[in-house]
Amino acid sequence: MPMYKANSPEAKAALEALEARRGESLEKALRVADEMIAGVRKGGDGFVAEQIARFDKVSIAPGAIRIAPRDVTIDGDLAEAIDTAIARVESFHREQLPQPYVWNNGTSSVVHRVRPLQRVGIYAPGGRAVYISTLIMCAVPARIAGVTDLVVATTPAAADRDELHYVCRKLGIREIYRAGGAVGIAALALGTESLARVDKIVGPGNQYVTAAKMRLIGQIGIDMTAGPTELIVIADDDADASLVAADLVAQAEHGPDSAVICLTTSAAIGRQMPERVITMLVESIDEAVAIADRLAPEHLSIHAKYPEAIAQRVENCAAIYCGPSSPGAAGDYIIGPNHVLPTAGSARFFSPLGVYDFVKRSNVVSLSAEDLAEIGPKAELLAVFEGLPNHARSIAARREQAPGAEPEKELSPKGEQS
Amino acid sequence: MPMYKANSPEAKAALEALEARRGESLEKALRVADEMIAGVRKGGDGFVAEQIARFDKVSIAPGAIRIAPRDVTIDGDLAEAIDTAIARVESFHREQLPQPYVWNNGTSSVVHRVRPLQRVGIYAPGGRAVYISTLIMCAVPARIAGVTDLVVATTPAAADRDELHYVCRKLGIREIYRAGGAVGIAALALGTESLARVDKIVGPGNQYVTAAKMRLIGQIGIDMTAGPTELIVIADDDADASLVAADLVAQAEHGPDSAVICLTTSAAIGRQMPERVITMLVESIDEAVAIADRLAPEHLSIHAKYPEAIAQRVENCAAIYCGPSSPGAAGDYIIGPNHVLPTAGSARFFSPLGVYDFVKRSNVVSLSAEDLAEIGPKAELLAVFEGLPNHARSIAARREQAPGAEPEKELSPKGEQS
Repeated sequence: MPMYKANSPEAKAALEALEARRGESLEKALRVADEMIAGVRKGGDGFVAEQIARFDKVSIAPGAIRIAPRDVTIDGDLAEAIDTAIARVESFHREQLPQPYVWNNGTSSVVHRVRPLQRVGIYAPGGRAVYISTLIMCAVPARIAGVTDLVVATTPAAADRDELHYVCRKLGIREIYRAGGAVGIAALALGTESLARVDKIVGPGNQYVTAAKMRLIGQIGIDMTAGPTELIVIADDDADASLVAADLVAQAEHGPDSAVICLTTSAAIGRQMPERVITMLVESIDEAVAIADRLAPEHLSIHAKYPEAIAQRVENCAAIYCGPSSPGAAGDYIIGPNHVLPTAGSARFFSPLGVYDFVKRSNVVSLSAEDLAEIGPKAELLAVFEGLPNHARSIAARREQAPGAEPEKELSPKGEQS
Repeated sequence: MPMYKANSPEAKAALEALEARRGESLEKALRVADEMIAGVRKGGDGFVAEQIARFDKVSIAPGAIRIAPRDVTIDGDLAEAIDTAIARVESFHREQLPQPYVWNNGTSSVVHRVRPLQRVGIYAPGGRAVYISTLIMCAVPARIAGVTDLVVATTPAAADRDELHYVCRKLGIREIYRAGGAVGIAALALGTESLARVDKIVGPGNQYVTAAKMRLIGQIGIDMTAGPTELIVIADDDADASLVAADLVAQAEHGPDSAVICLTTSAAIGRQMPERVITMLVESIDEAVAIADRLAPEHLSIHAKYPEAIAQRVENCAAIYCGPSSPGAAGDYIIGPNHVLPTAGSARFFSPLGVYDFVKRSNVVSLSAEDLAEIGPKAELLAVFEGLPNHARSIAARREQAPGAEPEKELSPKGEQS
């Protein structure tokens, strides 16, 4: 792919094409998701077993789709790598647990309660490989939040791997549901004969998985919607072209729809980028920052003299890697931060998966009679203004029954509720 | 409506009917939402003006849909009530701002950054009335988060009211887009000639609004999906039947699809409930708690001797009101906690709207060469296991270029990237 000046019509067209691709409709995937959701609702495990036979060419009895993790022994080096990844991810996420608080104004109090979700489903994509790293990135923050009831859904092939069982055992995941794609998502959300429905589903997947999550939001919680993976590199004259290229080639490895973009002030570096990379020559780091902010990429890798200063100026990106010893690919596995990240420009509003995604909050109100006497009439005024007189009456009724309260009829618009 | 024993077949049927209603498909609303989204994408303000003419019977020139809040004077008592509501909501929400942190293991650091969203759209429902309380509940936490760019969308009739303009001025909302329903949501999400697209849309609405939000998630952030409003009362023998009834009648005022349920240990109280209320006689408070938890209602009001102890045992409810001087209707306006709440059982996983809904997080990684030397090989092992050798190579390349690093070829599966 040629190198463009960032302000050229060709560069503009390339950026617009990229943005247009992101906005592409999931219409077909949504139709498939609807079919899977309706099927699971009606046919439960039996329907899921049919889909497994159809897509995965594996025959599993409906009652055997859900299995418990086996006690396994895996390669020692791999086990050590997994253990290190879990320990570092845990260490990084520990500070993310949202805190409850009590709001108190002297007489009244409101408890802002933070509790773990009860049951969470993790989707671990299982294509050619088994993504145990995704399982770690999802399960560790869930455990820190206090979620005890965790289930993973993945393809039968991935569910067969000892390494997956090893991670499940390590992280207290007691159920594996051997169904991938939209049907796996539907089973997690709706429940089947063998699988209790979950409260929230997290983890990335292909467009069918994303479509099913979009369809089911409200019946369950979801973490975010996911598109193909993305990396922008910002490189100044100080950058090492071979390292920049290595980052971009790694990202491209996820598939032909991964977006890999190099924004550089150096034509010499630009010329050394592989064919597959969209390379743009920028006049300044400011111009590169503006393009990165507009695209809001999943990953940003900064190869420059003062990388942290550039990172500071980028608003829209959830995972930023600074300097020569911070390879993004290590962040996918072991550094500590989460690799479940917003794609397709959604870093404008989504965040990396974190402990905060695994809690629910409640406000528990204990209002005092004194406080009610003071704010009640004002609330009544607002209720009447909004056309809800019975709301006002319900407040007035409380005021009038409060110990020691004098009826303040003039503030109660229509008298009390009998 | 008769009073059932909670364990009777009739009660079971009533609960199942309620749950089935919640699961009802939004199919028609989704089709309308799709039409509105496609229309806005193609026709911008002109299409929106057509819909306003069609549904609101008002003619507005496309360029005049967006207006700035006017400097207005409103009724003094109402202004004071609004000011008090804003002050209390602000005071309650202030502690919810998520904190950034720096994770440091001696040589490496990761900054967990928390920044406000840049531009937020608030949907304020405007049916027969103008819901200024919703505007307050959405804008105040957004402002605490640091969002400076706020726009409200509501129907032309609601947008005409001085009180809305007063609240906008108070809360620094500089744009009003006079379009309600799905077309208003589509305009906020996609942008038009006169309206810059937002990053996230918050605020409740009817099924068309909810359908449009569901369709657009991923292109924008949304707070939650909303259904009809709901209240469960748990009442023991200590309860005052007239206050219980007043709460339930207030909630029913939102419309015929609001669910209002009384769970009581007292047949005497049950008999005094109005016709519209689903009343169930429970054998114990435990039984009431179990039903409340299963239904996960939007609001729970506890009329009992020890209300806080009961609240403690209810897992799934985002707004709980305890005791005789805590009317839920006051919570809709002025107590302090948010009134934008999960409905239809979604308190299992959604939370009340809060400051945390208006931030985005980023992880900024600066790994040290020492740290990379230690964890790099482990990450490479994991990458190779997951079938991503170029990921491994990009990490190995960094290790080998790090100052003072010795090549550790045996751990780099396929040699370095050239």
